[in-house]
Amino acid sequence: MDARRVSRQAARLLADTPAIAEAHFRAEAEPYDALSRPDGYLNLGTAENRLLWDLLEGRLAQLPPMTEATARYAPLHGTGVLRGRVAELLSATVGTPLDAEDLVVISGATGALDAIASVLCDPGEAIVVPAPYYGAFDTDLGGRSGARILPAPLDPADGFRLTASAVDRALRRAREEGVTVRAVALSSPSNPIGEVHRPEVLAELLRVVRAHDVDLIADEIYAHAVFGGEAFTSAADPAVNPDWAGRTHVVWGFAKDFGLPGLKTGVLHTRDPRVREAARALAYFAPVSTATQHTLAELLADREWVASFLAAGRLRLGASYGHLTGLLEAYGIPYAPAGAGFSVWLDLGRWLPAAGFEGEELLWRELFEKAKVSILPGGAFRSPRPGWFRLCHTVDAPLVAEAVRRIAVHLGLPPQTGPHDPTPSPAPRNGSRP
Amino acid sequence: MDARRVSRQAARLLADTPAIAEAHFRAEAEPYDALSRPDGYLNLGTAENRLLWDLLEGRLAQLPPMTEATARYAPLHGTGVLRGRVAELLSATVGTPLDAEDLVVISGATGALDAIASVLCDPGEAIVVPAPYYGAFDTDLGGRSGARILPAPLDPADGFRLTASAVDRALRRAREEGVTVRAVALSSPSNPIGEVHRPEVLAELLRVVRAHDVDLIADEIYAHAVFGGEAFTSAADPAVNPDWAGRTHVVWGFAKDFGLPGLKTGVLHTRDPRVREAARALAYFAPVSTATQHTLAELLADREWVASFLAAGRLRLGASYGHLTGLLEAYGIPYAPAGAGFSVWLDLGRWLPAAGFEGEELLWRELFEKAKVSILPGGAFRSPRPGWFRLCHTVDAPLVAEAVRRIAVHLGLPPQTGPHDPTPSPAPRNGSRP
Repeated sequence: MDARRVSRQAARLLADTPAIAEAHFRAEAEPYDALSRPDGYLNLGTAENRLLWDLLEGRLAQLPPMTEATARYAPLHGTGVLRGRVAELLSATVGTPLDAEDLVVISGATGALDAIASVLCDPGEAIVVPAPYYGAFDTDLGGRSGARILPAPLDPADGFRLTASAVDRALRRAREEGVTVRAVALSSPSNPIGEVHRPEVLAELLRVVRAHDVDLIADEIYAHAVFGGEAFTSAADPAVNPDWAGRTHVVWGFAKDFGLPGLKTGVLHTRDPRVREAARALAYFAPVSTATQHTLAELLADREWVASFLAAGRLRLGASYGHLTGLLEAYGIPYAPAGAGFSVWLDLGRWLPAAGFEGEELLWRELFEKAKVSILPGGAFRSPRPGWFRLCHTVDAPLVAEAVRRIAVHLGLPPQTGPHDPTPSPAPRNGSRP
Repeated sequence: MDARRVSRQAARLLADTPAIAEAHFRAEAEPYDALSRPDGYLNLGTAENRLLWDLLEGRLAQLPPMTEATARYAPLHGTGVLRGRVAELLSATVGTPLDAEDLVVISGATGALDAIASVLCDPGEAIVVPAPYYGAFDTDLGGRSGARILPAPLDPADGFRLTASAVDRALRRAREEGVTVRAVALSSPSNPIGEVHRPEVLAELLRVVRAHDVDLIADEIYAHAVFGGEAFTSAADPAVNPDWAGRTHVVWGFAKDFGLPGLKTGVLHTRDPRVREAARALAYFAPVSTATQHTLAELLADREWVASFLAAGRLRLGASYGHLTGLLEAYGIPYAPAGAGFSVWLDLGRWLPAAGFEGEELLWRELFEKAKVSILPGGAFRSPRPGWFRLCHTVDAPLVAEAVRRIAVHLGLPPQTGPHDPTPSPAPRNGSRP
């Protein structure tokens, strides 16, 4: 049977499949194991937090089973119980009481991003995103809505820190070119950099967004994954956003902060009644299983457990980040410091085998095929400068150590002497597990 | 904060919210109870099978809890395990071995219909659907894809039985009007009629579809809900579809046959590689929770249990249908005979308080507001003739009896004497439950 025509809207999606997902499943199919598969892949490309399961397992096993009511039809934008509990949780995070009626539960943060982009944009209209940015934004925000994603390049000399002026420049340029921009979107805390945006930067960004009369989409899926000195501030916090709350739409989910990416539960918070109504109409196409909503609502019911779980998660993230950066410093691999998230943004620019993004792609392939380490190249994040890579460290520490060792060997870097000794001792190839 | 502009694509959805969902939630908020709320609503508008829970409850409670692997990222078009088990189940239903690789698991049958419509159609292109049809097809097939739904009216004199000639006429008319039709879609067994399409009718339909070079979308979500004399035949069965299998796309899910509508798990089966690839790309936006996939895969693992569960479900459906039709006959309310599904299609044409669809709408409102019985008017199913209503009987028998009694009272019908005595004895108002 011959492959045949599909619609133009479907063909657009096929041309644009996220590389992230592909590398993930390939690496997961043959994973490294010190004993049974020492030449397997080390998947440090996926932003999945594997440090939390022991905290979750017992709790999940205690939850009551599905009831008849659970199995029935429920509002397709989320059960009242789950929305109520999420509103409670996020009210503390955002710094202002959230109304459960302003929440739309939807199948994954991807679904929530797709919904808000489709509500705000018609095909050909644009969303400005500070770059580098979460690579799947292209698909999540633009794939179904037809919106164009316009990068606002941040400055590599400054470690790609967020600045309102970079966003302002991109908005001005779009206007000069006659492009209708409907929104600015960003990850906060940022992904891939792991920057926790300071309140004054967010306030300045909101002034720019307001001056251009566009909406703000804040993907705050890492809101509770903050471990550094800078505390998280939501873009919807009245302290930084006194007058643009109705035009600010926050996305959150259980994938990152709760380490439950398989459960595909995203949330959109929006205060504009018509936007909310339209987002509900889109949630109709991507509802979350009531059984999973029941599980998550029960998980959130015990506030004390949630607080201690999130606190423990932050401590483990900080330790994991510290372990990785110790190794990087010992080998002399430069990186941008992070205060949140699951990854570190490495600067491998000086080791590119060729110039530009072609060289970056080449190094990525070599690392994947020869060193069997899956990390993602900056090009996948629309990095303004070639040579950067995102490495996710939220897996067992020995896997991180083995991955950094393989990268260093591939780059021809001997371990440095110093306070951090990265030598895998005893070496994983010997089968022992430090 | 003022309600503001949303995109044209979102506004289209808002103009088109399915009435089915609205009536459902209103009726569910104040449900009838013989003891505590005798004047409450009787919701016989929703196609939900509430006759199965006792068969499911024990089985679901026995299933193993979520594991770490379950909580992680999985292929977004469905886990291999669930697709494998569904392929096994449906191979027997379709009458030919299905390949798990040809299945796309997606958030609800709605998601599956949206995916196949979006893969086949660009905005403005059309899908022909024999009418009356499942009212949410307008939204499910057209809401996001932008496809136009063109009804192919069936003949009321014939009880709206499916004929290939009605579809052929609609396809010819569309061509004359310069409309590009990409597909014919239908529920099989049909909804709202409950007709089990005979093999020769399906074979004739496939000849028409092929002659017009369009795809066929068969929504077979009631495939196992067949209780009458006619056995189910799939539109993808080689016996009726020897040469159009690559252009035939089957939708199925757990909502109807397994009585688990809250779990939002739909399946698309398609053999065309490019259509499948595009459907997978769309499933990325509406994946099913891995926890729910795990539950369903475990449920399907015990084939003996599944066979006896489905057999028991068919028996209960048949008994429920028999009970309802007995009552209808006793009161003298005409209906179209059904062999499948959860509903009966009532002909209340002679009792319309005004002519045409306005009269139908009026009677629907009276039944809802005064008799507090929620059934759906034929207009919601794009019925070619006013006066028909869909009544779902898959709830406790006393609720069905009370609903029919209220409808009969509203229509001024005394109970007839005869073999079926519809008198609720003892009357539900007395609090006893026959």
